[in-house]
Amino acid sequence: MNRQFLLAARPKGWVKENDFKYQETDIPRPGEGEILVKTRYISIDPSMRGQMENRGDYVAPLQLGDVMRANGIGQVTESNHPDYAVGDLVLGVFGMQDYSISNGTALRKFDKQVDPLAGLSVYGGTGMTAYFGLLDLGEPKAGDTVVISGAAGATGSIAGQIAKIKGCRVIGLAGSDEKCAFLKEVGFDEVINYKTDDIGEKLDDYCPGGINIYFDNVGGEILDLCLNRLAMNARVVLCGGISRYNMEGPIPGPVNYFNLIFRRARMEGFIVLDYAKQFPEATRQLQAWVASGDIQYRVHVVEGFKQLPKALIGMFEGDNIGKTVVACGD
Amino acid sequence: MNRQFLLAARPKGWVKENDFKYQETDIPRPGEGEILVKTRYISIDPSMRGQMENRGDYVAPLQLGDVMRANGIGQVTESNHPDYAVGDLVLGVFGMQDYSISNGTALRKFDKQVDPLAGLSVYGGTGMTAYFGLLDLGEPKAGDTVVISGAAGATGSIAGQIAKIKGCRVIGLAGSDEKCAFLKEVGFDEVINYKTDDIGEKLDDYCPGGINIYFDNVGGEILDLCLNRLAMNARVVLCGGISRYNMEGPIPGPVNYFNLIFRRARMEGFIVLDYAKQFPEATRQLQAWVASGDIQYRVHVVEGFKQLPKALIGMFEGDNIGKTVVACGD
Repeated sequence: MNRQFLLAARPKGWVKENDFKYQETDIPRPGEGEILVKTRYISIDPSMRGQMENRGDYVAPLQLGDVMRANGIGQVTESNHPDYAVGDLVLGVFGMQDYSISNGTALRKFDKQVDPLAGLSVYGGTGMTAYFGLLDLGEPKAGDTVVISGAAGATGSIAGQIAKIKGCRVIGLAGSDEKCAFLKEVGFDEVINYKTDDIGEKLDDYCPGGINIYFDNVGGEILDLCLNRLAMNARVVLCGGISRYNMEGPIPGPVNYFNLIFRRARMEGFIVLDYAKQFPEATRQLQAWVASGDIQYRVHVVEGFKQLPKALIGMFEGDNIGKTVVACGD
Repeated sequence: MNRQFLLAARPKGWVKENDFKYQETDIPRPGEGEILVKTRYISIDPSMRGQMENRGDYVAPLQLGDVMRANGIGQVTESNHPDYAVGDLVLGVFGMQDYSISNGTALRKFDKQVDPLAGLSVYGGTGMTAYFGLLDLGEPKAGDTVVISGAAGATGSIAGQIAKIKGCRVIGLAGSDEKCAFLKEVGFDEVINYKTDDIGEKLDDYCPGGINIYFDNVGGEILDLCLNRLAMNARVVLCGGISRYNMEGPIPGPVNYFNLIFRRARMEGFIVLDYAKQFPEATRQLQAWVASGDIQYRVHVVEGFKQLPKALIGMFEGDNIGKTVVACGD
């Protein structure tokens, strides 16, 4: 039996459980040159919201009734492909379903020595996003003051630790005391609970010389507060805008963008897929940092395939510290 | 007699004539090591609005009652300085007044062979702004589609012609048919009258492959329309925001900034003073382009010292094609 979640409706505002339709179908049969993959872990990502809504124009459109798209780690259970043997772990876009067929395109073998949860987090899309966003767009220099919003999330927490490795002072914003404590634990210099602290006041306290790099995962008010506190030649790395994803209607832009002129600063966006050729090199570097203890990663594991919609909704509600991953179970 | 315009009030909304106070005082006397300069031409710049309001944080504050700050070209009428002789033309910040004293700091001798109106326009601050904004931030490549707002202004008209020299297709936005005709005359490929055309539709027509460089002098709606039409890896050069300068209250930000992510694009601000060391080299290049006919400049000369406030107000109202300069008269 193949359990699946289909896209049932384009979400309006917050993602809701009935934007998905659960169904059970037959397990597909691999043809010549194909393999059958059983999904073990499914990665939950903010970009799913845009895919459900068919925004984003950097991935193929998702139609109503399609199996919801998702990255995952699976295991080969049948193989008609010379490069894959039964039992191999593979990384790919298997969707929100137990079983899928692949001909090997856009598939990567996954090293069994590596923690699969690391494969979907620090060595996965969110780790790569942190790596290239911070290093390539942020251009951190020792002594820089780096502010990271959504800092306890999968990307923010890694970006902050990379900034620390590069000799920066790192200030993280997160939405609970527990998340803030986690950030301190992994080496952030200062933390701001954006739900209870006066954000502007804290930023002033912690960034007396202004912000050299603002790594933005949230957009909205925090982006504006940071734009007003940029240091000269600052870099604003537009990684995401989680505050926007669940809003309906027109969303205000950053009113303080004009400060980019006074501060000779730039604001730049990126899509991590553009760096795909450099993923192996980034992975090796991240593995070395994990091995040396310079980077710690946390995974918020949600148990059970049927929890997939709840896990996604929960991520938007801020349930998670680090990466949200659903363990599909048997 | 020394005629002066003082800053009388911080402007609210549009600059008004009674934000200035006219007065006549004695001609100052140069001391040891000083010269007396008689102002001949005064440069009118959008940045004056920010200086009057004491915004901008990149120039020293201007207090109520101060002589209004302004760049100009003057002539030495008395000299106690070994480097300056009576009759020399000099370029500097003389303010809105007939006579001023200088000890030579921040003064440049001005070549009598050069048209003083060129010195305040294509070789002045606005020409430098066009040069460094387009070349350093815009990074034009042959075949790029370049959109320039406020294109008939002092900076936009030069930026567009530099883009043409670099092999780009250039689309200019301006506020009258006369301005659009001027743009065609100096080589712009396409023009949009933003007051009478459907801007979005025209941009779609003229930029089928998207916008590689948007050189923004205006902000507001046009910035948003361009953000939504960026090509991959586009550069948005934030040069100014003339639509903002005369607004009161909170000004909306660019709601489409998030497209910077999907288009892997950047939006960057700059202040031309940062390039001061490179001005001589840029001036030589611009002189060569003017000599070869690749760059044409237009100066909107307003006759008479007493017209200074009107000339500034007129520039915000879009009276000018090219650079606005006030000829002080006798």
